[in-house]
Amino acid sequence: MNAAQRATKITLEEHEMPTAWYNVAADLPEPLAPPLHPATGQPLGPQDLAPLFPMEVIRQEVSTERYIEIPEEVRDVYRLYRATPLMRARRLEKALDTPAKIFYKYEGASPAGSHKLNTAVAQAYYNKIEGVKRLSTETGAGQWGSALAIACSFLGLECMVYMVKVSYYQKPYRKSLIEAFGGRVIPSPSPETAVGRAALARDPESTGSLGLAISEAVEDAVGREDTKYSLGSVLNHVLLHQTVIGLEAKKQLEKADAYPDVVIGCVGGGSNFGGIAFPFVKDRLAGQKVQFLAVEPSACPTLTKGVFAYDYGDTAKMAPVVQMYTLGHDFMPEGIHAGGLRYHGMSPLISALYHQGIISAVALPQKSVFAAALQFARSEGLVVAPESAHAVKAAIDEALKCKESGEAKTILFNLSGHGNFDMAAYDSYLSGKLEDLDYPSALVEKCLEDLPKVG
Amino acid sequence: MNAAQRATKITLEEHEMPTAWYNVAADLPEPLAPPLHPATGQPLGPQDLAPLFPMEVIRQEVSTERYIEIPEEVRDVYRLYRATPLMRARRLEKALDTPAKIFYKYEGASPAGSHKLNTAVAQAYYNKIEGVKRLSTETGAGQWGSALAIACSFLGLECMVYMVKVSYYQKPYRKSLIEAFGGRVIPSPSPETAVGRAALARDPESTGSLGLAISEAVEDAVGREDTKYSLGSVLNHVLLHQTVIGLEAKKQLEKADAYPDVVIGCVGGGSNFGGIAFPFVKDRLAGQKVQFLAVEPSACPTLTKGVFAYDYGDTAKMAPVVQMYTLGHDFMPEGIHAGGLRYHGMSPLISALYHQGIISAVALPQKSVFAAALQFARSEGLVVAPESAHAVKAAIDEALKCKESGEAKTILFNLSGHGNFDMAAYDSYLSGKLEDLDYPSALVEKCLEDLPKVG
Repeated sequence: MNAAQRATKITLEEHEMPTAWYNVAADLPEPLAPPLHPATGQPLGPQDLAPLFPMEVIRQEVSTERYIEIPEEVRDVYRLYRATPLMRARRLEKALDTPAKIFYKYEGASPAGSHKLNTAVAQAYYNKIEGVKRLSTETGAGQWGSALAIACSFLGLECMVYMVKVSYYQKPYRKSLIEAFGGRVIPSPSPETAVGRAALARDPESTGSLGLAISEAVEDAVGREDTKYSLGSVLNHVLLHQTVIGLEAKKQLEKADAYPDVVIGCVGGGSNFGGIAFPFVKDRLAGQKVQFLAVEPSACPTLTKGVFAYDYGDTAKMAPVVQMYTLGHDFMPEGIHAGGLRYHGMSPLISALYHQGIISAVALPQKSVFAAALQFARSEGLVVAPESAHAVKAAIDEALKCKESGEAKTILFNLSGHGNFDMAAYDSYLSGKLEDLDYPSALVEKCLEDLPKVG
Repeated sequence: MNAAQRATKITLEEHEMPTAWYNVAADLPEPLAPPLHPATGQPLGPQDLAPLFPMEVIRQEVSTERYIEIPEEVRDVYRLYRATPLMRARRLEKALDTPAKIFYKYEGASPAGSHKLNTAVAQAYYNKIEGVKRLSTETGAGQWGSALAIACSFLGLECMVYMVKVSYYQKPYRKSLIEAFGGRVIPSPSPETAVGRAALARDPESTGSLGLAISEAVEDAVGREDTKYSLGSVLNHVLLHQTVIGLEAKKQLEKADAYPDVVIGCVGGGSNFGGIAFPFVKDRLAGQKVQFLAVEPSACPTLTKGVFAYDYGDTAKMAPVVQMYTLGHDFMPEGIHAGGLRYHGMSPLISALYHQGIISAVALPQKSVFAAALQFARSEGLVVAPESAHAVKAAIDEALKCKESGEAKTILFNLSGHGNFDMAAYDSYLSGKLEDLDYPSALVEKCLEDLPKVG
């Protein structure tokens, strides 16, 4: 055995880091259906997106180039925390008494505490070089808002975050983190936008929603010359930037002379799953034997219970209409602790791959997910974010299946973020207060009746 | 230039990790004065410490062997997070426009979020192999308590943490972290010990103190066959275990073809400073030109304003009497946010080195420390613990001196922990509520009158 095969932590030196992102759109068996304008139902052109995004981001959104170079200034920030470690979960394997080999990629090592910084830095960079001075965005649990605030601080942009009001007060430390990096964060609905004022007029006590916060951030960007909008998941360019995760993991596994039988990630909008999976999807499309498992919460089972259809990206019907798996744009999931997995839709790229049978999905209830997260913490030392805990649970389940079957599978999962700001969720679990929340089938059925009529 | 010289993050492969700790006691120009029994004033023997510590820990406490092997089971846990990265702070250097090279060792990469796990694992291991089933300890801000809980979880020991009551309620997430790893944590003073009950009888509203929590943890350990006591700083064996930090840093700097002109760390009890400094102190004692700067808060200026004398380690006069810099065992510093730097005394090893003129010290007020921490965060991406922020501020000051003088010094500092659980302190600073707290000279004078009469 070589040193990396024996190792627990597999590192990359700086000169081994990827210099280009991988664009899975280059290798899709069928191209994606075109996104449509939410008002006209006609295919979107670059000019429709120009008020929201810089041209290079729009170009990446529709690109079918296989590799897109990572700009030097972006790599300069990546060097602060990348390559993130690839860990062999030896202590967990022993605790499970499994013949499986479990590897995880630890994106919690980022300054933002999650993978979100990978695209935040890229988006801030492209905006900066096109003369944009200020970015607006929304955030739910605060992972994305804090990542964008850090990126803007590095690139010298102003950052404006509309944070869902209930999270703003429940997760004060995420708010503090945004402010520590010089970002401005206000609770949504806010009196600063027409959409926010209207919501407050309807209900002064509104605790907000992600859909509403998106609408506020979009209105902010569209209304100001110096400002564009930034989104933390779902879109093609976001997943493109996240492929740095899988590209690194592949090199690290090569060092350990390993290749995954199954690649696992949690899915909300899809960016951390796409990030680790796509470089291996490339191999699968070229004939390699490798499986993929997207893990969603059973309270928001977009892939496993949704439909594959055109739908709006947001509640207010301002975002593009895209073909994806959806529970309906009016769907509002229960307040599970994995706030980042509460999106009604799914990345069009991941939706297409799922529709074509290239990836599988599973939905898990949150109590079993927290139980797995605690088992993982007590073996590997890391308290993971509630979102990432879904991937942990699925990886443990795979490893236990191997114990049954005697198969020595190689399992790779993405540990997308740490749980340092989510300890209240663990308190809730440990004190027995956490409930599994049902899949609201009647609500979904109702929401699905309201899909846009297109084509 | 080679790759490591150009690099931002300098890693070590697993096979390059240190296999022995460095014991600075082997190289001290004069041996330490013997510790004394708090009741009799006579030199302590191993049998006096046996109710508190396992024999191997007692042996290490008095050892003058130069290198002490790191047991395989301890290295097995170290592999989960070590070697920690050595970072070249290139973005900070640019922001300061300094010719200095700034390196920092990032101990926040540990699962506990700080360097404390390095000794917690070692102590849990030595207790385990001597048949101890349960460890008791105290914790102030919670860094140490959570590190010991993680270590006990890994080694299969029970963990009992007496947490200073004011912190127990102010820092609920540290408490949650201890519980996530299966530790038990109760607010001190507690009804579970005689010392705690007496304190509650005197003042039912008592918010507790570190001195009192130590006394509770010691009483717990002394009163139970299955339990021993564990301390997170000050003692020789604790600093010994922390030298893994400096040993790694030295190898990492060698890769980058660098050697420090000055080594910087914050000091409370002294363990993170000793950890990074001692392997370089060895060189200094052998003639190498290298300086050392211990950074303390001006609200608790043990080295810069204390006296070098025999004093008790705790308020209740139950801990050994040692020769050290002290502000008096009754000294209770103001409630600065750097809770880990509020100890009245100082590691005897660091005290001796300071007394002999081998290391220097500086005391800094907390507002300037937080300003430096924010500048660091916005350059390097990391929000650091308030304790570590003292080292950040001193490193920035050194780099700015280099800018004045034109010297291209190499600065190495220990970034002992992240600030994810300390965002309330940053809120306080950002909202302008943070105050510099005066050095309480009259109080110290009074406290110093009560030193034990020995010798």
